[in-house]
Amino acid sequence: MPTGNPPKSVVVDLLAVLKDFLMPRSSAPKDEWIRPLVRGIEPYTPGEQPRVKGLIKLNTNENPYPPSPKVLETMRKAVDGRLRLYPNPRAQGLREALGKVHGLSGDHIIIGNGSDELLALATRAFVEPKVGRSNRETSNASTIQYWTPSYSLYPVLCQVHGAIINEVPLEADFTIPSLSRLKREKRWNFRAALTFVTTPNAPTGRGYPISQLRALCRSQQGMVVLDEAYVDFAQEHAMELVAELPNVIVSRTFSKSYSLCFQRVGYFVGHPKSIAALDAIRDSYNVNGLGQVAAEATLKHLGYYRKNFKRIIRLRTQIGQELASLGFDVLPSQTNFLFVRPPGAKAAQWYEGLRKRKILVRWFAHSPFKDRLRVTIGSEDEMNQFMTVVRSLVVRWT
Amino acid sequence: MPTGNPPKSVVVDLLAVLKDFLMPRSSAPKDEWIRPLVRGIEPYTPGEQPRVKGLIKLNTNENPYPPSPKVLETMRKAVDGRLRLYPNPRAQGLREALGKVHGLSGDHIIIGNGSDELLALATRAFVEPKVGRSNRETSNASTIQYWTPSYSLYPVLCQVHGAIINEVPLEADFTIPSLSRLKREKRWNFRAALTFVTTPNAPTGRGYPISQLRALCRSQQGMVVLDEAYVDFAQEHAMELVAELPNVIVSRTFSKSYSLCFQRVGYFVGHPKSIAALDAIRDSYNVNGLGQVAAEATLKHLGYYRKNFKRIIRLRTQIGQELASLGFDVLPSQTNFLFVRPPGAKAAQWYEGLRKRKILVRWFAHSPFKDRLRVTIGSEDEMNQFMTVVRSLVVRWT
Repeated sequence: MPTGNPPKSVVVDLLAVLKDFLMPRSSAPKDEWIRPLVRGIEPYTPGEQPRVKGLIKLNTNENPYPPSPKVLETMRKAVDGRLRLYPNPRAQGLREALGKVHGLSGDHIIIGNGSDELLALATRAFVEPKVGRSNRETSNASTIQYWTPSYSLYPVLCQVHGAIINEVPLEADFTIPSLSRLKREKRWNFRAALTFVTTPNAPTGRGYPISQLRALCRSQQGMVVLDEAYVDFAQEHAMELVAELPNVIVSRTFSKSYSLCFQRVGYFVGHPKSIAALDAIRDSYNVNGLGQVAAEATLKHLGYYRKNFKRIIRLRTQIGQELASLGFDVLPSQTNFLFVRPPGAKAAQWYEGLRKRKILVRWFAHSPFKDRLRVTIGSEDEMNQFMTVVRSLVVRWT
Repeated sequence: MPTGNPPKSVVVDLLAVLKDFLMPRSSAPKDEWIRPLVRGIEPYTPGEQPRVKGLIKLNTNENPYPPSPKVLETMRKAVDGRLRLYPNPRAQGLREALGKVHGLSGDHIIIGNGSDELLALATRAFVEPKVGRSNRETSNASTIQYWTPSYSLYPVLCQVHGAIINEVPLEADFTIPSLSRLKREKRWNFRAALTFVTTPNAPTGRGYPISQLRALCRSQQGMVVLDEAYVDFAQEHAMELVAELPNVIVSRTFSKSYSLCFQRVGYFVGHPKSIAALDAIRDSYNVNGLGQVAAEATLKHLGYYRKNFKRIIRLRTQIGQELASLGFDVLPSQTNFLFVRPPGAKAAQWYEGLRKRKILVRWFAHSPFKDRLRVTIGSEDEMNQFMTVVRSLVVRWT
């Protein structure tokens, strides 16, 4: 080192000071770098996925039975060098296979990263975000409407997209009001850009007659998504409306009935023009490869799943009757869960009491129906344990 | 049947006529049911995923080597009854593991359904869609900018979101212009809401000095995403900028370096406030379970992958030199591909000639650099076959 230079330690100190001045490590992103819309969002609260072992999970409407052993075998065989390659970007094989199942060509179908992704895509394809003050026409174009209660994701999707929300309450017994009543009372918007109908409904479990859905969809000027996540546990489905009415999209998922929540595969069936609009704005490789493999394999082994649907439906009837005989108010269910008002103590107390005894159900704490619990139908064994705990709490609390 | 009623066949006919009248099967969704924005979109064209067997795929920058056998084994073991359950909604385990890798807490990290999902989320979290005529301020808030050429998904994301696009060309040698030049020429927007920088760049392969990226990011008033999809094949990475500058997000993916394209796992590293904004608007279960399992297992076997990076880098150097000696113009590459201008014939002719001989490379037909081909570095064997074909075409065409 030549003489005349300052000692190294001084240079280092000066550099440190300079660096601190130029690169303040503690500064945060400015508020204005994040959209005002996003700053105000209350994120969706998914049902808890606890890490506690030995818990009986009756809180997120998952199927108690695993996928068919043949589906698992097909998936294991697919865990190989192909993982390095991109999956089919449009899930072509799965779309064609589903087309055959529903008697439609593949261009009526889009596959999503779970049906949740497609519900979000529908808001972005069919609804204009609201801007400043709106007149009647722009307001319709920005309106998303749905019944309350129904799937609790819808208000979050509306917020995220910046849509105008039109929430319309179901009747006191959770049925859909008659068309004439809707027209008279004027709360329902027949020109809403997008309408979501969960059918059969969650968290109520109620099925809606297809004739009523047909009449409702026919009266709408705008897209209607019939969200049939639970339809395999119901008496009727609305798939025929896709061919009848150009504004109807039916949403289905492999999550619940086909025990594939983990792999995120859902789909929409609709007119090719609506499907093309959704397709134009989705992420290019939106469905993971093993999810595609699993869903295609599932369609080859539907018999296995249909047997499980029957077991779940049978158990649903039995548990519903038993709960009713213990003083629960039990809504009729067309799904794999029951929506019940427990006797003797508040739902919150029941929720906590069940949880202490390692049974997890869903309680919507901040809702108008916080007097109710949603109980997924588990396996025979799980429901036996559930009923044992319920009986002991009934004895204690009533 | 009581007499006096019309014969059944007449009733059926009348019903059929009525049904045809009421339910016209051929009608399509009205244009106005689909957003004008969406009607005009040209979807992203992913690199071809051909079904032809025996093709050497050097077109989508996939890793030629499979995932570690230990990762595959872990995944196979996870193909079981757990598939019926929802995956961890925030990919908690993976976020914590990645936090350790990068020396940051998990709240600096968000996992996406591939980094593509996160790039799209960034547009929605940080950029206001443009509305009517805009003044200078609203225009900055709606602007997404990036260099050309860079990742061809960016313009599609801008269109889908309704952003103002600011495309700024790189220098003729595909380097980033100096800050002083950017300030002087005024095409670059230092107040753009969101800037995407692919680094190292695709499709050019060029790496940018971190010092230059630091200076650029520090000059930006708005978020900057440094898209490091190819960084494992480069000499430097920019992760340190996350701790230094509040507007920097680094994007990474398990697709290319970690041979997991099939399972769609990417991530962003950024300030917890930016990450929280993205987290608030993502789909609730956006990352499939086996993707999470695979990515977590990958982090336990990094040695396997690092060996492969070295093989690919070595081969990249060798193939680059061989192509140059045959008269190709070869850009220096910090990625797992080469961007070359072939000699003797047009790139289109080379593309077709290679394809006929079962070698697929990427040619960007509608771009200003349609005189070049992008060639992924495959395995030693694949590149030997590629070079044999190239030499025969050089003999024929030069």
